[in-house]
Amino acid sequence: MIKEGAEEKARDIKFVIVDIHGVLTDNTLYYTDDGKKSECFSLHDRLGFKALMACGIKVAFLTSKISRADEQMGKIYGIPPEFLWGSSAKMSLLDEKQKELGFTDNDFCYIGDEMIDLGMMKRARLSVAPSDASVEAKSVADIITKAGGGKGVIRELAEFILKAQGKWEGFISQIT
Amino acid sequence: MIKEGAEEKARDIKFVIVDIHGVLTDNTLYYTDDGKKSECFSLHDRLGFKALMACGIKVAFLTSKISRADEQMGKIYGIPPEFLWGSSAKMSLLDEKQKELGFTDNDFCYIGDEMIDLGMMKRARLSVAPSDASVEAKSVADIITKAGGGKGVIRELAEFILKAQGKWEGFISQIT
Amino acid sequence: MIKEGAEEKARDIKFVIVDIHGVLTDNTLYYTDDGKKSECFSLHDRLGFKALMACGIKVAFLTSKISRADEQMGKIYGIPPEFLWGSSAKMSLLDEKQKELGFTDNDFCYIGDEMIDLGMMKRARLSVAPSDASVEAKSVADIITKAGGGKGVIRELAEFILKAQGKWEGFISQIT
Amino acid sequence: MIKEGAEEKARDIKFVIVDIHGVLTDNTLYYTDDGKKSECFSLHDRLGFKALMACGIKVAFLTSKISRADEQMGKIYGIPPEFLWGSSAKMSLLDEKQKELGFTDNDFCYIGDEMIDLGMMKRARLSVAPSDASVEAKSVADIITKAGGGKGVIRELAEFILKAQGKWEGFISQIT
Repeated sequence: MIKEGAEEKARDIKFVIVDIHGVLTDNTLYYTDDGKKSECFSLHDRLGFKALMACGIKVAFLTSKISRADEQMGKIYGIPPEFLWGSSAKMSLLDEKQKELGFTDNDFCYIGDEMIDLGMMKRARLSVAPSDASVEAKSVADIITKAGGGKGVIRELAEFILKAQGKWEGFISQIT
Repeated sequence: MIKEGAEEKARDIKFVIVDIHGVLTDNTLYYTDDGKKSECFSLHDRLGFKALMACGIKVAFLTSKISRADEQMGKIYGIPPEFLWGSSAKMSLLDEKQKELGFTDNDFCYIGDEMIDLGMMKRARLSVAPSDASVEAKSVADIITKAGGGKGVIRELAEFILKAQGKWEGFISQIT
Repeated sequence: MIKEGAEEKARDIKFVIVDIHGVLTDNTLYYTDDGKKSECFSLHDRLGFKALMACGIKVAFLTSKISRADEQMGKIYGIPPEFLWGSSAKMSLLDEKQKELGFTDNDFCYIGDEMIDLGMMKRARLSVAPSDASVEAKSVADIITKAGGGKGVIRELAEFILKAQGKWEGFISQIT
Repeated sequence: MIKEGAEEKARDIKFVIVDIHGVLTDNTLYYTDDGKKSECFSLHDRLGFKALMACGIKVAFLTSKISRADEQMGKIYGIPPEFLWGSSAKMSLLDEKQKELGFTDNDFCYIGDEMIDLGMMKRARLSVAPSDASVEAKSVADIITKAGGGKGVIRELAEFILKAQGKWEGFISQIT
């Protein structure tokens, strides 16, 4: 669902910040009997990240703690290691990163799925929730994607933002 | 589905006891060729457990045998190790825990999914079954959650109990 | 779907023979980058196997090759190791087992999901296919379960057979 | 969905070339905390590959890089190792293989799911996309299978091609 004004907001986006669990994954953790954790990610999102970065939009992961699995997926998605951000104090980390990298609340899009993301979602120019996010996240979001978490949320969002910015056709013609 | 009287029963709950398989998981076991087992859990439930405990409601896991995977998830969900209960004689373990911890059948909520859980469900003040539980468990339950096992049953139940107790809004305002 | 005559056939069943892939699993294989295979099984089926054996019905797995994962699940389901049968010549293995264990085509139920199972399904007194089996298996089967492969096919079948034999209520009263 | 002319095109197919991710898998990658990747495949496709090859149609995997998991599945599906093709320059690899193995664009079928596959899909005599492929791949494809990626796409396609070529019944009678 695209709420009114979302397309206009999408035109200004220079930075996309992504909560990992529930957005890049379906919030499921797999645990082996000897205590090893796995998570699953979608290759559809690889094209979304590639498209955003090819069109000059920066991308960062934001989660409480970056795991080895997150690092591996960052590599597969092509996210530079310095854009894998782990902190439980997300608001103050954002302040710090805005100063360091020179962007403001009017420049970024945030994708999250739970109540804990509401602060970031309200601060962002454009806020997005997957179709299976919590009621609270969906009520705040400018866009609710058709895809659920871990099923291509970034693929869908990248197309929306880049179409709003008139850059999608150019990207397609490059890769096909 | 919320059966009549469930909301009133929810007001009295001081303890939530959770069957693991089919409630925190979707009853699926993964086995590797070299004999290692995995199971999967939902991060949505982490918020549910956090909410219950932040509002003074105790939480315990009850299963025939606590595995390493169960221990790891207990840690992620914030359940104190002494509340991970493993026993195949669930009824007598419950008697023992009630004496030790000072609570009665009128104080606790039980969530289960199979015929083996019927005894506990009948004893509990409030009984709950996931949407994909067995017919028998669902016919006994006071509440059938919208979520299936492993898909956020505790997230949904915590919200129901805490709203009935008038504590949900306070919890939300703390974390957002 | 229960085809006509299935209930009557179910009354005679003394042996249940189960194809593993597509029946106890959803036909999905997981492979790690270092070549380790996993498969997934349902704990719902544990109750089905328990019920059948508690009521005097024998159970065997039949697949081309018994893997370590199959052995582990056999243990969890309570199948005696001598009833884990691996052979790519299923028909002649069945002949051999019938002689050894003293049962005939009129005594057994077979559950399978693919064209390769059609011979066994035609020979069996009662034949069963999961809801997501191939068109060919479903057209031959006496019963098409509501459950798909790996989602509780045996749980559902056990209840059907034991109700037909008038043994289900007795089993339930034992375990609850 | 079978677009007009697809059946006629299927009569000419001598070679089936398969993109792995999103076709043999559902595009999901599983990552463990210590950085190991897994993917999942369907055993339904084993019958599809077996049918194609038994009827004299060659089969190759084509992906940017053949992983250990891909090799294992190739073995299970019965694909000869020299038909596991890894290259990020798919077009020129195809040119090379056509010269080496003596086939043309009029002889082969290609199955893909993303924009990156569009070039191959346009070149192929017959092009196929799974039901959950991208909009772009589905708009180009001659056939959109009922099955999603990793859920039996090759099983379904093999039946379609071999029926068009009048070879399906013969294959069935061999294996049942």
